[in-house]
Amino acid sequence: MKFLSFEKDGKQSWGALKDDGIVDLGSRVDGDLHEVLKQGKLEAMKQMAAELAADFSAEGIKYLAPITAPEKIACVGVNYANRNAEYKDGSEAPKYPSLFIRTPDSLTGHDLPLIRPPESHQLDYEGEIVLIIGKEGRRIAEEDAYDHIAGITIMNEGTLRDWVRHAKFNVTQGKNFVHSGSIGPWMVTMDEFTEQQLENMRVTTRVNGEVRQDDTTASMMFPFKYIISYFSKFFHLKPGDVIATGTPNGAGARFEPPIYLVPGDVVEVEVEGVGVLSNGIADEVL
Amino acid sequence: MKFLSFEKDGKQSWGALKDDGIVDLGSRVDGDLHEVLKQGKLEAMKQMAAELAADFSAEGIKYLAPITAPEKIACVGVNYANRNAEYKDGSEAPKYPSLFIRTPDSLTGHDLPLIRPPESHQLDYEGEIVLIIGKEGRRIAEEDAYDHIAGITIMNEGTLRDWVRHAKFNVTQGKNFVHSGSIGPWMVTMDEFTEQQLENMRVTTRVNGEVRQDDTTASMMFPFKYIISYFSKFFHLKPGDVIATGTPNGAGARFEPPIYLVPGDVVEVEVEGVGVLSNGIADEVL
Repeated sequence: MKFLSFEKDGKQSWGALKDDGIVDLGSRVDGDLHEVLKQGKLEAMKQMAAELAADFSAEGIKYLAPITAPEKIACVGVNYANRNAEYKDGSEAPKYPSLFIRTPDSLTGHDLPLIRPPESHQLDYEGEIVLIIGKEGRRIAEEDAYDHIAGITIMNEGTLRDWVRHAKFNVTQGKNFVHSGSIGPWMVTMDEFTEQQLENMRVTTRVNGEVRQDDTTASMMFPFKYIISYFSKFFHLKPGDVIATGTPNGAGARFEPPIYLVPGDVVEVEVEGVGVLSNGIADEVL
Repeated sequence: MKFLSFEKDGKQSWGALKDDGIVDLGSRVDGDLHEVLKQGKLEAMKQMAAELAADFSAEGIKYLAPITAPEKIACVGVNYANRNAEYKDGSEAPKYPSLFIRTPDSLTGHDLPLIRPPESHQLDYEGEIVLIIGKEGRRIAEEDAYDHIAGITIMNEGTLRDWVRHAKFNVTQGKNFVHSGSIGPWMVTMDEFTEQQLENMRVTTRVNGEVRQDDTTASMMFPFKYIISYFSKFFHLKPGDVIATGTPNGAGARFEPPIYLVPGDVVEVEVEGVGVLSNGIADEVL
Protein backbone atom coordinates (compact mmCIF):
# COMPACT_ATOMS: atom_id res chain seq x y z
CA MET A 1 0.00 0.00 0.00
CA LYS A 2 1.16 3.54 -0.80
CA PHE A 3 0.60 6.17 1.93
CA LEU A 4 1.12 9.85 1.27
CA SER A 5 0.64 13.29 2.82
CA PHE A 6 -0.75 16.09 0.70
CA GLU A 7 -2.52 19.40 0.55
CA LYS A 8 -5.77 19.70 -1.40
CA ASP A 9 -7.69 22.94 -1.74
CA GLY A 10 -5.37 24.48 0.83
CA LYS A 11 -6.11 21.81 3.44
CA GLN A 12 -3.50 19.35 4.71
CA SER A 13 -4.43 15.68 4.81
CA TRP A 14 -3.00 12.22 4.18
CA GLY A 15 -4.22 9.00 2.71
CA ALA A 16 -3.60 5.97 0.54
CA LEU A 17 -2.95 6.09 -3.18
CA LYS A 18 -4.77 3.33 -5.05
CA ASP A 19 -5.27 2.63 -8.77
CA ASP A 20 -8.46 4.71 -8.82
CA GLY A 21 -7.06 7.63 -6.83
CA ILE A 22 -6.62 8.77 -3.24
CA VAL A 23 -8.49 7.46 -0.22
CA ASP A 24 -8.53 10.47 2.10
CA LEU A 25 -7.76 8.98 5.51
CA GLY A 26 -7.10 12.35 7.14
CA SER A 27 -10.81 13.10 6.90
CA ARG A 28 -11.72 9.79 8.56
CA VAL A 29 -9.31 9.31 11.46
CA ASP A 30 -7.62 11.53 14.05
CA GLY A 31 -4.01 12.46 13.44
CA ASP A 32 -1.69 12.22 10.46
CA LEU A 33 0.45 9.37 9.09
CA HIS A 34 3.10 10.10 11.73
CA GLU A 35 0.50 9.78 14.48
CA VAL A 36 -0.83 6.52 12.97
CA LEU A 37 2.69 5.08 13.04
CA LYS A 38 3.16 6.20 16.65
CA GLN A 39 -0.07 4.48 17.63
CA GLY A 40 0.86 1.31 15.74
CA LYS A 41 -2.25 1.57 13.58
CA LEU A 42 -0.71 1.21 10.12
CA GLU A 43 -2.20 -2.27 9.57
CA ALA A 44 -5.67 -1.01 10.45
CA MET A 45 -5.23 1.89 8.02
CA LYS A 46 -4.13 -0.48 5.25
CA GLN A 47 -7.28 -2.48 5.77
CA MET A 48 -9.50 0.60 5.89
CA ALA A 49 -7.96 1.98 2.70
CA ALA A 50 -8.27 -1.37 0.93
CA GLU A 51 -12.00 -1.48 1.57
CA LEU A 52 -12.79 2.07 0.47
CA ALA A 53 -13.14 3.54 -3.01
CA ALA A 54 -10.95 6.53 -3.86
CA ASP A 55 -12.32 9.93 -2.83
CA PHE A 56 -10.59 11.88 -5.58
CA SER A 57 -7.85 11.63 -8.16
CA ALA A 58 -4.25 12.53 -7.35
CA GLU A 59 -4.35 15.24 -10.04
CA GLY A 60 -3.87 18.68 -8.60
CA ILE A 61 -2.86 17.68 -5.07
CA LYS A 62 0.27 19.24 -3.57
CA TYR A 63 2.59 16.46 -2.40
CA LEU A 64 4.07 16.92 1.08
CA ALA A 65 6.80 14.90 2.75
CA PRO A 66 5.12 11.59 3.77
CA ILE A 67 6.10 12.37 7.39
CA THR A 68 5.78 16.14 7.54
CA ALA A 69 7.72 16.79 10.77
CA PRO A 70 10.01 13.87 11.62
CA GLU A 71 11.90 14.03 14.90
CA LYS A 72 14.99 12.77 13.08
CA ILE A 73 16.09 12.85 9.46
CA ALA A 74 19.32 10.87 9.64
CA CYS A 75 21.37 10.57 6.46
CA VAL A 76 24.14 8.11 5.71
CA GLY A 77 27.08 9.71 3.92
CA VAL A 78 29.22 7.54 1.66
CA ASN A 79 27.62 4.08 1.42
CA TYR A 80 27.87 2.61 -2.08
CA ALA A 81 31.21 0.86 -2.38
CA ASN A 82 32.24 2.48 -5.65
CA ARG A 83 31.43 5.92 -4.22
CA ASN A 84 34.19 5.72 -1.62
CA ALA A 85 36.62 5.12 -4.51
CA GLU A 86 35.12 8.20 -6.21
CA TYR A 87 36.59 10.43 -3.50
CA LYS A 88 40.06 9.52 -4.84
CA ASP A 89 41.76 10.28 -1.54
CA GLY A 90 43.25 6.81 -1.32
CA SER A 91 41.28 6.06 1.81
CA GLU A 92 40.27 2.51 2.62
CA ALA A 93 36.65 1.45 2.89
CA PRO A 94 35.25 3.09 6.03
CA LYS A 95 34.72 0.98 9.14
CA TYR A 96 31.50 2.79 10.10
CA PRO A 97 29.02 4.86 8.12
CA SER A 98 29.20 8.64 8.05
CA LEU A 99 26.06 10.26 9.41
CA PHE A 100 24.59 13.75 9.31
CA ILE A 101 21.18 15.21 10.03
CA ARG A 102 18.84 17.25 7.88
CA THR A 103 16.03 19.43 9.21
CA PRO A 104 12.44 19.05 7.92
CA ASP A 105 12.59 22.45 6.18
CA SER A 106 15.46 21.27 4.01
CA LEU A 107 13.13 18.92 2.09
CA THR A 108 10.24 19.83 -0.14
CA GLY A 109 7.68 17.45 -1.68
CA HIS A 110 7.31 15.65 -5.00
CA ASP A 111 6.69 17.83 -8.06
CA LEU A 112 7.72 21.03 -6.24
CA PRO A 113 10.93 22.82 -7.23
CA LEU A 114 14.22 22.38 -5.41
CA ILE A 115 15.36 25.87 -4.45
CA ARG A 116 18.72 27.22 -5.60
CA PRO A 117 19.64 29.93 -3.07
CA PRO A 118 21.53 33.09 -3.96
CA GLU A 119 24.32 31.99 -1.58
CA SER A 120 25.44 29.15 -3.86
CA HIS A 121 24.96 27.94 -7.41
CA GLN A 122 26.45 24.53 -6.65
CA LEU A 123 23.11 22.75 -6.13
CA ASP A 124 23.56 19.02 -6.75
CA TYR A 125 21.31 15.94 -6.66
CA GLU A 126 21.76 12.74 -4.64
CA GLY A 127 19.17 10.02 -5.26
CA GLU A 128 18.55 7.87 -2.18
CA ILE A 129 16.39 5.09 -0.81
CA VAL A 130 14.75 6.11 2.47
CA LEU A 131 13.56 3.99 5.38
CA ILE A 132 10.70 5.21 7.57
CA ILE A 133 10.71 3.70 11.05
CA GLY A 134 7.47 2.05 12.15
CA LYS A 135 8.39 0.53 15.51
CA GLU A 136 10.53 2.11 18.19
CA GLY A 137 13.69 0.45 19.38
CA ARG A 138 17.15 0.76 20.82
CA ARG A 139 20.05 -1.60 20.12
CA ILE A 140 18.05 -3.43 17.49
CA ALA A 141 19.67 -6.67 16.31
CA GLU A 142 20.31 -6.86 12.56
CA GLU A 143 18.00 -9.86 12.28
CA ASP A 144 15.14 -7.81 13.75
CA ALA A 145 15.84 -4.66 11.72
CA TYR A 146 13.18 -5.11 9.01
CA ASP A 147 10.46 -5.39 11.70
CA HIS A 148 11.21 -1.78 12.68
CA ILE A 149 10.69 -0.35 9.19
CA ALA A 150 7.17 0.84 8.27
CA GLY A 151 7.96 1.47 4.63
CA ILE A 152 10.20 2.93 1.99
CA THR A 153 10.24 6.27 0.24
CA ILE A 154 12.67 8.27 -1.94
CA MET A 155 14.86 11.30 -1.29
CA ASN A 156 16.67 13.69 -3.52
CA GLU A 157 19.23 14.55 -0.90
CA GLY A 158 20.01 17.87 -2.58
CA THR A 159 23.27 19.48 -1.56
CA LEU A 160 25.04 22.81 -1.91
CA ARG A 161 28.52 21.50 -2.65
CA ASP A 162 30.60 24.50 -1.60
CA TRP A 163 28.67 24.86 1.66
CA VAL A 164 29.33 21.25 2.75
CA ARG A 165 32.98 22.25 2.79
CA HIS A 166 32.53 25.34 4.94
CA ALA A 167 33.78 23.55 8.01
CA LYS A 168 36.71 21.25 8.70
CA PHE A 169 34.28 18.66 10.08
CA ASN A 170 30.58 18.21 9.34
CA VAL A 171 28.59 18.83 6.20
CA THR A 172 25.48 20.24 7.93
CA GLN A 173 25.34 23.66 6.26
CA GLY A 174 25.35 22.41 2.67
CA LYS A 175 22.69 19.82 3.52
CA ASN A 176 20.22 22.18 5.12
CA PHE A 177 19.32 25.03 2.82
CA VAL A 178 15.52 25.38 2.86
CA HIS A 179 13.96 23.14 0.17
CA SER A 180 17.31 22.17 -1.31
CA GLY A 181 16.18 18.53 -1.31
CA SER A 182 12.94 16.57 -1.59
CA ILE A 183 11.23 13.46 -0.24
CA GLY A 184 8.31 11.34 -1.40
CA PRO A 185 6.05 10.99 -3.32
CA TRP A 186 4.74 8.31 -0.93
CA MET A 187 5.76 5.56 1.45
CA VAL A 188 5.36 2.00 0.18
CA THR A 189 4.73 -0.36 3.10
CA MET A 190 7.29 -3.05 3.91
CA ASP A 191 4.97 -5.97 3.12
CA GLU A 192 5.36 -5.13 -0.58
CA PHE A 193 9.05 -6.11 -0.58
CA THR A 194 10.77 -9.48 -0.19
CA GLU A 195 14.13 -9.59 1.57
CA GLN A 196 15.67 -10.40 -1.76
CA GLN A 197 14.17 -7.25 -3.28
CA LEU A 198 15.36 -5.10 -0.38
CA GLU A 199 18.88 -6.38 -0.77
CA ASN A 200 19.09 -5.77 -4.51
CA MET A 201 16.90 -2.69 -4.93
CA ARG A 202 17.73 -0.31 -7.76
CA VAL A 203 17.98 3.47 -7.41
CA THR A 204 18.37 5.57 -10.54
CA THR A 205 18.73 9.34 -10.88
CA ARG A 206 18.01 11.09 -14.15
CA VAL A 207 18.59 14.75 -14.99
CA ASN A 208 16.50 15.88 -17.96
CA GLY A 209 16.07 12.21 -18.83
CA GLU A 210 19.80 11.38 -18.80
CA VAL A 211 20.83 8.67 -16.32
CA ARG A 212 23.41 10.03 -13.87
CA GLN A 213 23.22 7.57 -10.97
CA ASP A 214 22.28 3.90 -11.21
CA ASP A 215 23.11 1.23 -8.67
CA THR A 216 21.46 -1.25 -6.33
CA THR A 217 21.51 -1.85 -2.60
CA ALA A 218 23.69 -4.91 -3.31
CA SER A 219 26.59 -2.40 -3.61
CA MET A 220 26.02 -0.96 -0.15
CA MET A 221 28.90 -1.13 2.30
CA PHE A 222 26.31 -0.68 5.06
CA PRO A 223 23.03 -2.46 4.20
CA PHE A 224 19.65 -1.45 5.64
CA LYS A 225 19.90 -4.02 8.45
CA TYR A 226 23.30 -2.75 9.53
CA ILE A 227 22.16 0.89 9.43
CA ILE A 228 19.12 0.23 11.64
CA SER A 229 21.23 -1.76 14.08
CA TYR A 230 24.12 0.73 14.19
CA PHE A 231 21.98 3.90 14.42
CA SER A 232 19.93 2.36 17.23
CA LYS A 233 23.06 1.97 19.35
CA PHE A 234 22.96 5.74 20.01
CA PHE A 235 19.51 6.83 18.75
CA HIS A 236 16.27 5.69 20.28
CA LEU A 237 14.60 5.05 16.91
CA LYS A 238 10.93 6.00 16.87
CA PRO A 239 7.96 5.72 14.50
CA GLY A 240 8.24 8.42 11.86
CA ASP A 241 12.02 8.73 12.03
CA VAL A 242 13.47 9.02 8.55
CA ILE A 243 16.72 7.39 7.45
CA ALA A 244 18.29 8.21 4.07
CA THR A 245 20.63 5.39 3.17
CA GLY A 246 23.24 7.08 0.97
CA THR A 247 23.63 7.82 -2.73
CA PRO A 248 25.34 5.92 -5.56
CA ASN A 249 28.17 7.51 -7.51
CA GLY A 250 27.48 9.91 -10.32
CA ALA A 251 26.50 13.13 -8.51
CA GLY A 252 27.08 16.28 -10.57
CA ALA A 253 30.08 17.29 -8.44
CA ARG A 254 31.97 14.20 -9.65
CA PHE A 255 32.04 15.26 -13.27
CA GLU A 256 35.02 17.22 -14.58
CA PRO A 257 34.09 20.00 -14.70
CA PRO A 258 31.20 19.59 -12.24
CA ILE A 259 27.66 19.90 -13.62
CA TYR A 260 25.36 21.61 -11.16
CA LEU A 261 21.60 21.93 -11.37
CA VAL A 262 20.12 25.05 -12.97
CA PRO A 263 16.57 26.39 -13.28
CA GLY A 264 14.77 24.45 -16.00
CA ASP A 265 16.39 21.11 -15.10
CA VAL A 266 14.19 18.24 -13.97
CA VAL A 267 15.61 15.61 -11.63
CA GLU A 268 13.91 12.24 -11.27
CA VAL A 269 14.92 9.71 -8.66
CA GLU A 270 13.44 6.29 -9.29
CA VAL A 271 13.48 3.49 -6.74
CA GLU A 272 12.42 0.03 -7.83
CA GLY A 273 9.09 -0.94 -6.33
CA VAL A 274 8.52 2.54 -4.90
CA GLY A 275 8.11 5.04 -7.75
CA VAL A 276 9.62 8.24 -9.10
CA LEU A 277 10.34 11.42 -7.15
CA SER A 278 10.47 14.31 -9.59
CA ASN A 279 11.49 17.92 -8.99
CA GLY A 280 12.30 20.93 -11.11
CA ILE A 281 14.78 23.61 -10.06
CA ALA A 282 13.95 27.23 -9.29
CA ASP A 283 15.99 30.18 -8.17
CA GLU A 284 14.88 31.46 -4.80
CA VAL A 285 12.58 34.46 -4.96
CA LEU A 286 13.80 36.97 -2.40
CA MET B 1 12.49 36.20 34.07
CA LYS B 2 13.39 32.51 34.28
CA PHE B 3 11.13 30.10 32.37
CA LEU B 4 11.40 26.34 32.79
CA SER B 5 9.70 23.07 31.87
CA PHE B 6 9.27 20.40 34.50
CA GLU B 7 7.42 17.36 35.72
CA LYS B 8 5.67 17.43 39.08
CA ASP B 9 3.80 14.48 40.52
CA GLY B 10 4.17 12.74 37.17
CA LYS B 11 2.56 15.59 35.25
CA GLN B 12 4.39 17.72 32.70
CA SER B 13 4.08 21.49 32.96
CA TRP B 14 6.07 24.68 32.61
CA GLY B 15 6.28 27.98 34.38
CA ALA B 16 8.37 30.81 35.76
CA LEU B 17 10.86 30.46 38.58
CA LYS B 18 10.71 33.37 41.03
CA ASP B 19 12.33 33.97 44.42
CA ASP B 20 9.42 32.35 46.22
CA GLY B 21 9.13 29.34 43.89
CA ILE B 22 7.45 28.32 40.68
CA VAL B 23 4.46 29.98 39.05
CA ASP B 24 2.79 27.09 37.21
CA LEU B 25 1.85 28.60 33.85
CA GLY B 26 1.08 25.23 32.25
CA SER B 27 -2.01 24.99 34.44
CA ARG B 28 -3.19 28.46 33.39
CA VAL B 29 -2.63 28.72 29.63
CA ASP B 30 -2.89 26.41 26.64
CA GLY B 31 0.32 24.97 25.27
CA ASP B 32 3.88 24.76 26.58
CA LEU B 33 6.78 27.22 26.50
CA HIS B 34 7.51 26.25 22.88
CA GLU B 35 3.93 27.04 21.91
CA VAL B 36 4.05 30.37 23.76
CA LEU B 37 7.17 31.33 21.80
CA LYS B 38 5.50 30.29 18.52
CA GLN B 39 2.53 32.48 19.34
CA GLY B 40 4.71 35.41 20.32
CA LYS B 41 3.22 35.50 23.82
CA LEU B 42 6.39 35.52 25.92
CA GLU B 43 5.91 39.13 27.03
CA ALA B 44 2.35 38.39 28.17
CA MET B 45 3.63 35.37 30.11
CA LYS B 46 6.33 37.46 31.79
CA GLN B 47 3.68 39.89 32.92
CA MET B 48 1.34 37.15 34.11
CA ALA B 49 4.14 35.44 36.07
CA ALA B 50 5.25 38.74 37.60
CA GLU B 51 1.80 39.39 39.02
CA LEU B 52 1.24 35.93 40.50
CA ALA B 53 2.58 34.39 43.70
CA ALA B 54 4.46 31.09 43.38
CA ASP B 55 2.30 27.96 43.38
CA PHE B 56 4.94 25.67 44.87
CA SER B 57 8.63 25.45 45.60
CA ALA B 58 11.09 24.09 43.03
CA GLU B 59 12.05 21.32 45.49
CA GLY B 60 11.23 17.91 44.15
CA ILE B 61 10.34 18.88 40.60
CA LYS B 62 11.95 16.98 37.73
CA TYR B 63 13.66 19.45 35.40
CA LEU B 64 13.00 18.93 31.70
CA ALA B 65 14.69 20.62 28.75
CA PRO B 66 13.20 24.16 28.63
CA ILE B 67 12.01 23.41 25.07
CA THR B 68 11.14 19.72 25.28
CA ALA B 69 10.96 18.95 21.54
CA PRO B 70 12.85 21.55 19.49
CA GLU B 71 12.67 21.25 15.71
CA LYS B 72 16.40 22.00 15.58
CA ILE B 73 19.22 21.63 18.07
CA ALA B 74 22.11 23.15 16.14
CA CYS B 75 25.55 23.04 17.74
CA VAL B 76 28.61 25.07 16.82
CA GLY B 77 31.80 22.99 16.87
CA VAL B 78 35.07 24.76 17.56
CA ASN B 79 34.33 28.39 18.47
CA TYR B 80 36.59 29.69 21.25
CA ALA B 81 39.81 30.92 19.66
CA ASN B 82 42.15 29.07 21.97
CA ARG B 83 40.25 25.82 21.31
CA ASN B 84 41.23 25.73 17.64
CA ALA B 85 44.84 25.89 18.80
CA GLU B 86 44.07 23.00 21.16
CA TYR B 87 43.61 20.68 18.18
CA LYS B 88 47.33 21.07 17.45
CA ASP B 89 46.92 20.21 13.79
CA GLY B 90 48.53 23.43 12.63
CA SER B 91 45.31 24.57 11.01
CA GLU B 92 44.53 28.24 10.70
CA ALA B 93 41.50 29.81 12.34
CA PRO B 94 38.45 28.51 10.49
CA LYS B 95 36.65 30.79 8.06
CA TYR B 96 33.19 29.48 9.00
CA PRO B 97 31.86 27.69 12.09
CA SER B 98 31.54 23.93 12.19
CA LEU B 99 27.96 22.82 12.76
CA PHE B 100 26.30 19.56 13.76
CA ILE B 101 22.86 18.62 14.98
CA ARG B 102 21.75 16.83 18.14
CA THR B 103 18.39 15.11 18.58
CA PRO B 104 16.12 15.94 21.55
CA ASP B 105 16.69 12.48 23.09
CA SER B 106 20.41 13.16 23.37
CA LEU B 107 19.79 15.74 26.13
CA THR B 108 18.41 15.15 29.60
CA GLY B 109 17.41 17.78 32.16
CA HIS B 110 19.10 19.49 35.09
CA ASP B 111 19.88 17.30 38.10
CA LEU B 112 19.35 14.07 36.13
CA PRO B 113 22.32 11.80 35.36
CA LEU B 114 24.18 11.86 32.07
CA ILE B 115 24.15 8.30 30.79
CA ARG B 116 27.39 6.46 30.04
CA PRO B 117 26.45 3.75 27.51
CA PRO B 118 28.06 0.31 27.39
CA GLU B 119 29.30 1.11 23.86
CA SER B 120 31.82 3.68 25.08
CA HIS B 121 33.47 4.81 28.31
CA GLN B 122 34.79 8.00 26.74
CA LEU B 123 31.96 10.25 28.00
CA ASP B 124 33.18 13.85 28.13
CA TYR B 125 31.67 17.22 29.12
CA GLU B 126 31.41 20.40 27.04
CA GLY B 127 29.97 23.43 28.83
CA GLU B 128 28.11 25.76 26.46
CA ILE B 129 25.96 28.86 26.31
CA VAL B 130 22.71 28.20 24.46
CA LEU B 131 20.46 30.58 22.51
CA ILE B 132 16.75 29.87 22.22
CA ILE B 133 15.13 31.49 19.19
CA GLY B 134 12.07 33.62 19.91
CA LYS B 135 11.27 35.11 16.51
CA GLU B 136 11.43 33.37 13.17
CA GLY B 137 13.70 34.61 10.44
CA ARG B 138 15.78 33.90 7.40
CA ARG B 139 18.91 35.79 6.37
CA ILE B 140 18.87 37.79 9.59
CA ALA B 141 21.29 40.72 9.60
CA GLU B 142 23.84 40.68 12.44
CA GLU B 143 22.47 43.96 13.77
CA ASP B 144 19.01 42.38 14.13
CA ALA B 145 20.23 39.07 15.60
CA TYR B 146 19.48 39.78 19.28
CA ASP B 147 15.84 40.55 18.42
CA HIS B 148 15.45 36.93 17.33
CA ILE B 149 16.65 35.43 20.63
CA ALA B 150 14.03 34.71 23.31
CA GLY B 151 16.52 33.82 26.01
CA ILE B 152 19.60 31.96 27.13
CA THR B 153 20.09 28.58 28.74
CA ILE B 154 22.99 26.18 29.37
CA MET B 155 24.08 22.92 27.77
CA ASN B 156 26.43 20.21 28.83
CA GLU B 157 27.08 19.11 25.27
CA GLY B 158 28.17 15.64 26.43
CA THR B 159 30.14 13.65 23.90
CA LEU B 160 31.35 10.08 23.41
CA ARG B 161 34.85 10.88 22.13
CA ASP B 162 35.62 7.66 20.27
CA TRP B 163 32.23 7.70 18.52
CA VAL B 164 32.70 11.22 17.11
CA ARG B 165 35.62 9.73 15.20
CA HIS B 166 33.67 6.81 13.73
CA ALA B 167 33.34 8.54 10.39
CA LYS B 168 35.75 10.44 8.16
CA PHE B 169 33.34 13.39 8.17
CA ASN B 170 30.69 14.33 10.74
CA VAL B 171 30.59 13.85 14.48
CA THR B 172 26.87 12.96 14.71
CA GLN B 173 27.16 9.53 16.34
CA GLY B 174 29.24 10.61 19.34
CA LYS B 175 26.93 13.60 19.92
CA ASN B 176 23.68 11.67 19.95
CA PHE B 177 23.75 8.87 22.49
CA VAL B 178 20.49 9.05 24.46
CA HIS B 179 20.91 11.36 27.48
CA SER B 180 24.64 11.81 26.94
CA GLY B 181 24.19 15.56 27.40
CA SER B 182 21.90 17.94 29.25
CA ILE B 183 20.18 21.30 28.90
CA GLY B 184 18.65 23.75 31.35
CA PRO B 185 17.80 24.34 34.14
CA TRP B 186 15.82 27.27 32.70
CA MET B 187 15.80 29.94 30.02
CA VAL B 188 16.62 33.49 31.18
CA THR B 189 14.87 36.01 28.94
CA MET B 190 16.97 38.36 26.80
CA ASP B 191 15.83 41.54 28.58
CA GLU B 192 18.00 40.51 31.55
CA PHE B 193 21.22 40.97 29.56
CA THR B 194 22.91 44.07 28.20
CA GLU B 195 24.83 43.79 24.91
CA GLN B 196 28.00 44.25 26.89
CA GLN B 197 27.11 41.29 29.11
CA LEU B 198 26.27 39.10 26.11
CA GLU B 199 29.61 39.89 24.53
CA ASN B 200 31.67 39.09 27.60
CA MET B 201 29.65 36.32 29.24
CA ARG B 202 31.48 33.75 31.31
CA VAL B 203 30.99 29.99 31.01
CA THR B 204 32.68 27.73 33.55
CA THR B 205 32.65 23.94 33.81
CA ARG B 206 33.52 22.18 37.04
CA VAL B 207 33.95 18.44 37.58
CA ASN B 208 33.60 17.50 41.24
CA GLY B 209 34.21 21.14 42.09
CA GLU B 210 37.43 21.44 40.04
CA VAL B 211 37.38 24.08 37.29
CA ARG B 212 38.04 22.48 33.91
CA GLN B 213 36.70 25.07 31.45
CA ASP B 214 36.55 28.81 31.99
CA ASP B 215 36.26 31.44 29.30
CA THR B 216 33.99 34.21 28.07
CA THR B 217 32.16 34.97 24.86
CA ALA B 218 34.78 37.66 24.20
CA SER B 219 37.02 34.76 23.02
CA MET B 220 34.53 33.54 20.43
CA MET B 221 35.66 33.41 16.83
CA PHE B 222 31.98 33.43 15.87
CA PRO B 223 29.94 35.62 18.28
CA PHE B 224 26.20 35.15 18.87
CA LYS B 225 25.28 37.75 16.25
CA TYR B 226 27.39 36.07 13.59
CA ILE B 227 25.97 32.62 14.42
CA ILE B 228 22.35 33.78 14.11
CA SER B 229 23.11 35.57 10.87
CA TYR B 230 25.13 32.71 9.35
CA PHE B 231 22.77 29.88 10.40
CA SER B 232 19.79 31.79 9.04
CA LYS B 233 21.36 31.83 5.57
CA PHE B 234 20.40 28.14 5.20
CA PHE B 235 18.02 27.49 8.13
CA HIS B 236 14.66 29.13 8.51
CA LEU B 237 15.11 29.86 12.22
CA LYS B 238 11.93 29.43 14.24
CA PRO B 239 10.72 30.02 17.79
CA GLY B 240 11.98 27.21 20.00
CA ASP B 241 15.02 26.38 17.87
CA VAL B 242 18.04 25.75 20.08
CA ILE B 243 21.57 26.87 19.23
CA ALA B 244 24.55 25.70 21.30
CA THR B 245 27.38 28.15 20.73
CA GLY B 246 30.49 26.02 21.28
CA THR B 247 32.65 25.08 24.24
CA PRO B 248 35.86 26.61 25.67
CA ASN B 249 39.04 24.56 25.87
CA GLY B 250 39.61 22.17 28.75
CA ALA B 251 37.38 19.20 27.85
CA GLY B 252 38.52 15.91 29.41
CA ALA B 253 39.77 14.60 26.06
CA ARG B 254 42.43 17.36 25.97
CA PHE B 255 44.25 16.15 29.06
CA GLU B 256 47.15 13.75 28.66
CA PRO B 257 46.07 11.11 29.39
CA PRO B 258 42.40 12.02 28.79
CA ILE B 259 40.12 12.14 31.84
CA TYR B 260 36.65 10.86 31.03
CA LEU B 261 33.56 11.05 33.21
CA VAL B 262 32.75 8.12 35.47
CA PRO B 263 29.74 7.29 37.65
CA GLY B 264 29.95 9.34 40.84
CA ASP B 265 31.28 12.44 39.09
CA VAL B 266 29.24 15.63 39.18
CA VAL B 267 29.57 18.13 36.33
CA GLU B 268 28.43 21.72 36.79
CA VAL B 269 28.23 24.18 33.93
CA GLU B 270 27.79 27.75 35.11
CA VAL B 271 26.87 30.62 32.83
CA GLU B 272 27.03 34.15 34.19
CA GLY B 273 23.58 35.62 34.63
CA VAL B 274 21.86 32.31 33.84
CA GLY B 275 22.68 29.79 36.57
CA VAL B 276 24.22 26.36 37.06
CA LEU B 277 23.35 23.18 35.14
CA SER B 278 24.35 20.20 37.27
CA ASN B 279 24.39 16.52 36.36
CA GLY B 280 25.77 13.34 37.85
CA ILE B 281 26.93 10.40 35.74
CA ALA B 282 25.33 6.96 35.68
CA ASP B 283 26.04 3.79 33.78
CA GLU B 284 23.16 2.81 31.55
CA VAL B 285 20.89 0.16 33.02
CA LEU B 286 20.22 -2.40 30.29
